[in-house]
Order: sequence, then structure tokens, then C-alpha cells
Amino acid sequence: MESPEEKLLRSFVFGRLLNQDTRTKTVNLLGKIDSQSAIVIAEKTAFTTDPEFLESFSQPSHLSALSLVERNDIYHWFLASQATGELPRHAEAKLTLIFPATETHIRKYSVQSLRMVTETPEIYREHVLPYVSSKRGGGRLNWVYNVLEKKRESESIIIEDTDEQEGFMLLPDLKWDRRTMSSLYTMALVLRRDITSVRDLKKKDVPWLRRLQKKILEGICDKYSGIEADQIRLYIHYQPSYYHFHIHAVAISHDGGGGQAAGKAMLLQNVISQLEGMAGEGEVGFADVELTYFVGEESELWQNVFSKLKK
Amino acid sequence: MESPEEKLLRSFVFGRLLNQDTRTKTVNLLGKIDSQSAIVIAEKTAFTTDPEFLESFSQPSHLSALSLVERNDIYHWFLASQATGELPRHAEAKLTLIFPATETHIRKYSVQSLRMVTETPEIYREHVLPYVSSKRGGGRLNWVYNVLEKKRESESIIIEDTDEQEGFMLLPDLKWDRRTMSSLYTMALVLRRDITSVRDLKKKDVPWLRRLQKKILEGICDKYSGIEADQIRLYIHYQPSYYHFHIHAVAISHDGGGGQAAGKAMLLQNVISQLEGMAGEGEVGFADVELTYFVGEESELWQNVFSKLKK
Repeated sequence: MESPEEKLLRSFVFGRLLNQDTRTKTVNLLGKIDSQSAIVIAEKTAFTTDPEFLESFSQPSHLSALSLVERNDIYHWFLASQATGELPRHAEAKLTLIFPATETHIRKYSVQSLRMVTETPEIYREHVLPYVSSKRGGGRLNWVYNVLEKKRESESIIIEDTDEQEGFMLLPDLKWDRRTMSSLYTMALVLRRDITSVRDLKKKDVPWLRRLQKKILEGICDKYSGIEADQIRLYIHYQPSYYHFHIHAVAISHDGGGGQAAGKAMLLQNVISQLEGMAGEGEVGFADVELTYFVGEESELWQNVFSKLKK
Repeated sequence: MESPEEKLLRSFVFGRLLNQDTRTKTVNLLGKIDSQSAIVIAEKTAFTTDPEFLESFSQPSHLSALSLVERNDIYHWFLASQATGELPRHAEAKLTLIFPATETHIRKYSVQSLRMVTETPEIYREHVLPYVSSKRGGGRLNWVYNVLEKKRESESIIIEDTDEQEGFMLLPDLKWDRRTMSSLYTMALVLRRDITSVRDLKKKDVPWLRRLQKKILEGICDKYSGIEADQIRLYIHYQPSYYHFHIHAVAISHDGGGGQAAGKAMLLQNVISQLEGMAGEGEVGFADVELTYFVGEESELWQNVFSKLKK
């Protein structure tokens, strides 16, 4: 027996798409039931984690419609769907096989428990700075310098400003397909090599940072039609994933998840504004303030610094 | 013909779950192929937005396994799956029907284009403050005052500090089921009524804010076992959704999406640290700095203030 509600849903007539979210796998549809407006929100359900279901990934025979999309080294991408679907796209899942997988892969794809940490100027100088130096040494930044010296990726440069002190290079991030403006994701690498992170920014850098902000925004808008300066989010990570100063320039419509969260991302404009308002002369800066952010429990900073300070 | 890659995937033997993300509908599985480690990442695919597929929501006959989960007024929740699935959970989608839907619903579920805006102290005083005042007047904050006066929701209070100047009330957010610690979501409402937003915080408020931070964190940890102070994210929204000062206290593992993004959320600890570092005496504060954040194009602030200033 059909419930009255089910009957309502079955008489929905689709009109137009209101919104979609590819990250959460949702579409919002506007339509009519009789002559009145109705909205249907369809969201894929999350995988259940019942042992029985998870076991079904063992030697899966039900995935008869399995197709390889791409392969790169140990990474294999497939699209999988049930054998008998009339609505195959509805049923599809993307499967990535990493084989053989090392301990590093296992750690990377395991639950990353997070912790909030507060880094005082003292903790920065005594505990974090030595870690940062170790991450800059031993050729670990060679890949950045290769890019800056155009030994690599020079064909990808989107904007370039060759001024030795103030210059930068804007490059596409791997996450971006280099076409879709709504998911534009680029990275500005500064040419100067003396700034490791936001911690090295000082009040005297404000004029430079303002010019950098302006050039990045104007550069992107000159290069690409279909995006305006106020549709670009400029931010810095602290901690960053590598210690050569760089700025993320990303379409505002791109949902960057945890990488855009407060406690990881700082908007460039607010960094500038905080520097401007600081008590003190030009040499004062982010090395002098307390910074609170989150780190993964598996990170070196948690394991070697903050978990020990907590005790 | 099976490809070698497909053969590999079909010989995967499930070991254990490494991670799951219910927001993006992903599970990471660790297992073996022969005797070597292998990882399978399964992610539901996003809905296609092909007109043909979207049309299939019209008077859907293929959704034979449709079940009503709940109904509240105009909201109807269903689980839908294909008729013939051997793996029904794999194929399921959650459908929400809003019927009848008004213009407000349609706007709410439409694409919300965002814009970055920079609010100088002058723009705040001349354009934003009048808007804030209008949002505080006409009884619009009565629901907050009812809570503070315990006319409503008093049975939900998690922590209470009745000090007139420094007191606050901690309440669960509607998003929280009040049980699962990994998705803890609470809100601290301060008792004093003179702070509308972060813009009213001054350097002289630092000692109070530090005590507030300590009391909220200790209060939550006293009340609930299974969560530690450094697993709680404390943040303020700017712009907030209502103009009575409140602090979000949320489990660090809860993915709050855009509401936790830089440009909307400010960590309480970094707000305190910025105030501390400001040039000037006790009366200086966030009313004196430039703040950059994002707003929806449908918002009153964009439509009545920032889009006009842009011209």
C-alpha cells in the first residue's frame, strides 16, 4: 500500500535544477505537484559500515559492471555499478585501488584524529622552528626551487612577476582541471626564499602583501574571463605543507573542506589587517603572537612537540 | 574480457575499515591481495545532471523500493532504492520532499553564489551597523532573551554561569543528537546583552574572554567523558546569524563545512590573540580593523550594502 506521502512524491514533475553539490552528492530539484511548487532534495546515502556490507568488498562478484577508468603506478581507478541497474548512474561508486600499499599509505587513509594546539611565540622559537628548519633542509624544497628556476612546470605558469624582491609565480594546483572556473585552484609561489610561513611576516611587509594581493587577483581576472576578483578566496595555511611562502588562490565556489577551515586557513586580507593593527614598529609580526590551529595526531608536530608539551 | 587491473580488484580480501566520511560518502578499506596490503577507497559518485537523468525524477516508477522515514509539516523524508538491488544500501538515496514550497524555500535551496567582501571600520559604522541594529530591534532577539531568562529551553542547559557580567549559558545546537561525542555541537550564549558580534570586542575584554574560553572547555569536559579540551573547536561567526554574542563549541571531528571556513569562522583563541597584539589601549578593538569575509549574493548585506559599494 502506498502512503499518501509516497503518492505525493510519485506525482512530482521535474522543472529545473536548483543546486548541486558534487562533494556531498546532492541535487536540489524544483518541480510541481499538481500546480504547486515542490522541491526534491536527493542525496546519496553514506556507505553503511556493517561488517556484512564491508565483507561484500571481498572478491566482489556482484560488481559485474566494473570498468577501469585510469591507472597510474600503484593507483587504479574504477567505476562500479550493480549488474542490473536501470538507473546505473544512481547506483555507481568510484573505487580506487592502491596496490601494493605501504605503511605510509595506510596511515594516510586512516582516521586522522585532530587536536587543537596553541603555539605561543616561545613554543614557536624553541620547538617548532627547529622542525621547520629540518623541513627546509636536505633538498626538501628543491622541487619548489626547480619550479621557480623554470627547470620544471614552466609550461604551466599562469602569471609571472619576475621582480626579485616582490615577484611571484602563479601555478595551477593538481586538483584543478585547468578549465572549470567554478573549481579554479591555483597557488602563488613568491620568488624570495626567506619567508618560510606566516610566522615570518612582519608589519613592514604590509605594502608588499597588498601589492601581491592586487596582482594575483588582477592577474587571474585578466587571464580568465568568467571570474571576478571578489569570487576568489586568497588564503595561507598554517601549518603549511611546505615551508616556502605561498598563497592559495581558489574559486570561492570550490569547497575545500578542512583545508579552508579556520584553524588551518587564514585569509590573506585578514593576515594583512592583523599586521596593520599590531602594536609596535615594522619588525613586529606574526612571530610575536599566539596562534591556535589544529594538527593531526599522526603529524610530527603533534607526536614530537605538542603531545609532549601537553604532559 | 577482464583487464589485469579488474582481476586485481576482484581478488581483494577485506581486512578492516580505515576511515569513513559520511559527508562525502566515502569508505577507506584495508585488505590483502595475495599476501600484500591493498587499500580500496569507495566513494559514491555524484548525481549526474544530465537532463535525461533529472527527468527520471518525474513521476518516478523505477523507485519501487521507496519508504517514508519521517514527516514534519511540509517536509517528507524517504529512502529510495532500485527495485532489484542485491546491494540495496549501495544504491540508496535519501529523498526530501518539500511540499508545498514557497519562494523562500526555493531561494534557500538554490545555488548560493558567494562574494568576498572587505568591511573597513568606516563601512562597518556607516553601512553595516544600521543593518545590525535593525536585526536587533523589533523583538528579533526575544527568542534569545527567552532562553537567557529560562522561559524556554531551560531543560536543555548544559552549563550555566550566572554571573551578570561574565556569565553564559551553554546549550546544545539542533544539529546535535546530544549523545554522539564525535559530533558534539553546542553554543555558548553570554548573559550580557551589549555585545552584538566580534566587532564589539575590545582589548579590555581579553581577560573575560580568556576566562570564558577556560570555563566552556572545562565545563564540557566535566559534563561529558570521552572528549578532551583540545578536541573542541571554539569559534565565532562573522557575520553571525543573530546579533547577540555567542560562541560555537564543536567537536573537532565534526565537519561543519562552510560554517567553519576562514572568512566566516574565527577561532576564539585567535580573536583573543589578535586583540592582545593590537596597538592602543583597552578601548581599541575589532571595530577598528578591516575584516574580510564572504557573503551570499542573496543576503541583505550583499544586496543592500556591498553590491552597491562595488559599483
